[in-house]
Formats: sequence, C-alpha cells, structure tokens
Amino acid sequence: MKNEEYIYGINPVLSYLRNNKSGKKIWIFLQKKYNRKIQTIINISKKMHIPIILLSKNNSRFQKINHQGIILLKNEQILFNNSIENLLNDITKNTLLLVLERIQDPQNLGACLRSAAAANVQAVIISKFQSSPITQTVRKVSCGSEKFLNIYIVKNLSSVLKKLKKSGVWIIGLTPHASKIIYQINFKIPIAIIAGNEGTGLRNITMKYSDYLTKIPILNSTIESLNVSVSIGITLFEIIRQRMY
Amino acid sequence: MKNEEYIYGINPVLSYLRNNKSGKKIWIFLQKKYNRKIQTIINISKKMHIPIILLSKNNSRFQKINHQGIILLKNEQILFNNSIENLLNDITKNTLLLVLERIQDPQNLGACLRSAAAANVQAVIISKFQSSPITQTVRKVSCGSEKFLNIYIVKNLSSVLKKLKKSGVWIIGLTPHASKIIYQINFKIPIAIIAGNEGTGLRNITMKYSDYLTKIPILNSTIESLNVSVSIGITLFEIIRQRMY
Repeated sequence: MKNEEYIYGINPVLSYLRNNKSGKKIWIFLQKKYNRKIQTIINISKKMHIPIILLSKNNSRFQKINHQGIILLKNEQILFNNSIENLLNDITKNTLLLVLERIQDPQNLGACLRSAAAANVQAVIISKFQSSPITQTVRKVSCGSEKFLNIYIVKNLSSVLKKLKKSGVWIIGLTPHASKIIYQINFKIPIAIIAGNEGTGLRNITMKYSDYLTKIPILNSTIESLNVSVSIGITLFEIIRQRMY
Repeated sequence: MKNEEYIYGINPVLSYLRNNKSGKKIWIFLQKKYNRKIQTIINISKKMHIPIILLSKNNSRFQKINHQGIILLKNEQILFNNSIENLLNDITKNTLLLVLERIQDPQNLGACLRSAAAANVQAVIISKFQSSPITQTVRKVSCGSEKFLNIYIVKNLSSVLKKLKKSGVWIIGLTPHASKIIYQINFKIPIAIIAGNEGTGLRNITMKYSDYLTKIPILNSTIESLNVSVSIGITLFEIIRQRMY
C-alpha cells in the first residue's frame, strides 16, 4: 500500500513529473555528479516548487528498494487537464461522472469522494479554482477513496463541460432552484452530475451548460438544502437504483 | 423566532425545568424576597448547574415582556426519556423516525439532523451514552435544524426500541452486514431507521431488536461503507421516494 505513494527511479520519476505535473516531495541521494536526467528532475522540481531533500549516500531510508538514488512522494493520484481526452474517448451509455465545482470544505470533499468511489463513478472532475485541494483531512474523511478514483483537477470547467457534451454526456446540475426532482429524471443515459459550492451553489454559467437541473425533494420548507455530500450521495444512489431496475 | 428560545414567567420556567431537565441560562430580576417557586427554580438550577444571572430591577433587558422577573434560555429543544410516551401515542402509518446510536462526530450528527429535518421525520431519537451532545458545531452543521426537530435523548435505547415495536413501529437497522439492500425493503409502513457508531456500527443488541437489516448497495468492493450522514440521507430519501410513488 505504502509503496503506491512513491515513485522510484530516474525514468519513472521524470515521466511522472512530466505527465502529472505534481509531486509532494523528492528525495535525492547525494552523488558527486548528477546525470543529465536527474538534473532535469531537479530543474522541473524547482519550477514546480516541489521540495527536494538531499540524503547522504549511506542514509538507510528507502533501503532494499532499487531507487537509483531518486524517490518521489506523490502529491495525489490526480490527473490534470491535458489527460481529459482519455476520458472523452471512454464514454459509454453507463458513464457516470461526478463534477464538483468549488467545494471548499475538506470534510465535504472527502465525503463526496467516498460516495463517488462507492458508486463506482468513472471519474471525478474538480474545478481547480476555489476548491479544497486533496488535503490530509480530505484523505482521512474519504477513507482513502481518492486512491481508487480517477480524479481530474481542471482549470477551465466550462470547456471540459463543453467537451463532455460533445462526447455524448448529459450534464445534470444539482440545485435547489431546479423544478424537477431527481425521481423525475431518467438517469439511464451517460451522465455527469454537477454540484456546486456549499454557500452559493452552481455558477450561472454551469447551470447554462446543464442539460437538466434537478433537486432533492425537501419536505420541510424551513430547510433550504442538504449538506452537499449528502445531496451527492442521494443523487448518485438514485442513479444506481434506476440503473439496477 | 428568537422568542422560542426563551421561557418567560415563574410557572412556565419551573415546569420547563421539571419536564426537560435542561436550560442554558436563567435570568432573575433582583427582588427583596423571592417567593417559594422562584426559590425552587434557583435550587433546581443550582442542582443542574444552570448559570443564574441576576439583573437589577431597572435592567432594560427583556423589556415589554411579561416575564414575572424570571427568564430561561432553553438549552436545546430536546425532550428526554419521560416524554417518549407522547411519541408512542402518535404513531401513524406514515411515521418515520430516525434513531442515532452513538454517533460521535459532531459534523456527522449535524448533517444527520439536517437531513432528518429535510425529510420531515417525526422525531430523532439519540442514545444518551457515547453520542456527541448537541454542541455548537452540531448546530452550525445542522443549519439550525435542531430547532424544527423533536429530539429525544434517551438513556435506555433498547427499552425505547421495545416500546416502539409494541406501538407498531418497524425497526430497520442500517448496516453493511445486511443481506437486503434498501431498494428491496418496503418502506410504506411505520418505520424507525437506526444507524450506529461511525467506527463500530450498530450494537449487536440493536441488530437483534431490528425487524429488518438493510444496506446501501456499494458497487466498489474496496469501499466498506459510506459516511454515516450520507448513508442516512440516502436511506431517508429512498423512503420518501417510495412513499411518493
């Protein structure tokens, strides 16, 4: 388990950095002279502000592992904008995606990821701006779900939504302002469910991109909305129910 | 709204203290001599460790209210063991109760209360021992839902479950160990849904008292369970769905 959090060796680390543009920490064992690739890794790390820790040759850390003197601690198993094309090529009639726009509370984000993993969503797409990053709290609350999920953190959510629509995915926005309740929506189509910020909800532009808006039928008029992670849980499992029967 | 948080007057305060055994603060306007009932209120308050604030006769607080010199700030709108009989006399075919056994995280408890209020449950029954009290965090996360809910905090949950069963309520335990999923249960009967502790789940004795056990169908075998407030949200709204259609 622990091993999955690290990348070992010159080529794996370099390739990981180039593809994922992330990393939490890098350990480099001191050498008289670094080869060209290690030098590139050092340069990239500096650019990305990834801390580099230098270890003496005899340091016993990472013993018994063939690490070629270089180890990267993954930041998160997260894919970025540029790899979204893979997802677009993989849309089927059972596609279920969860899109989280500006979820700011790490507890909420963690609970959303846990539900997303339990519902076996194909991917979670998170808006980069104004969202909680995948912090230790998120990981704790998600019970490690982020390890089993394809998570895309995207800068331009609108452009991703546009691409998803083009690929045949129906965008369904979750908002108390919707007129249709979730039980009135046919979820047996390729779907991306979007939920928005805890306080302000979905952005107007996101609602505009949505093919449907839907809400959970709240029976008590003094309660405006549910906790966002609860709303998402209810909606994901309504989709699962419909697809089961 | 604000007024509902206070009890005014000698008899109302005394009766509230006797029935609810709670109170956050008491204000008493200074008098030369307190009558016997006020003296009793002072004695009870001291026993219950409710702070008493003495106000001078001319204090302008609580002006324009006929308070007879005594005001109580309610601790929470919470009913205790002795008043559960009222609930038992009020069971109908649409009864929906939420029972929370040893929910320890205030965030979870708050989110559960918010969902319970949104689902218009008739009452929430909370086991007194090993549960989070209704703290400020609970109130914040619940968005004030505790004000609209009938909450019973009970010492002996097993005896309450027994009484509910006798009154015609079906006890349904939520546990990943159940064989039936929520979509296979007929919820169009008087129901009490029980969820247990975040780590250890329902106690064995509580499962024994349950007429059914049920679970949410988790599609990913690496995920054992959902966050308890999400599980409760999903189950409450499956009940609502069934009762709507």
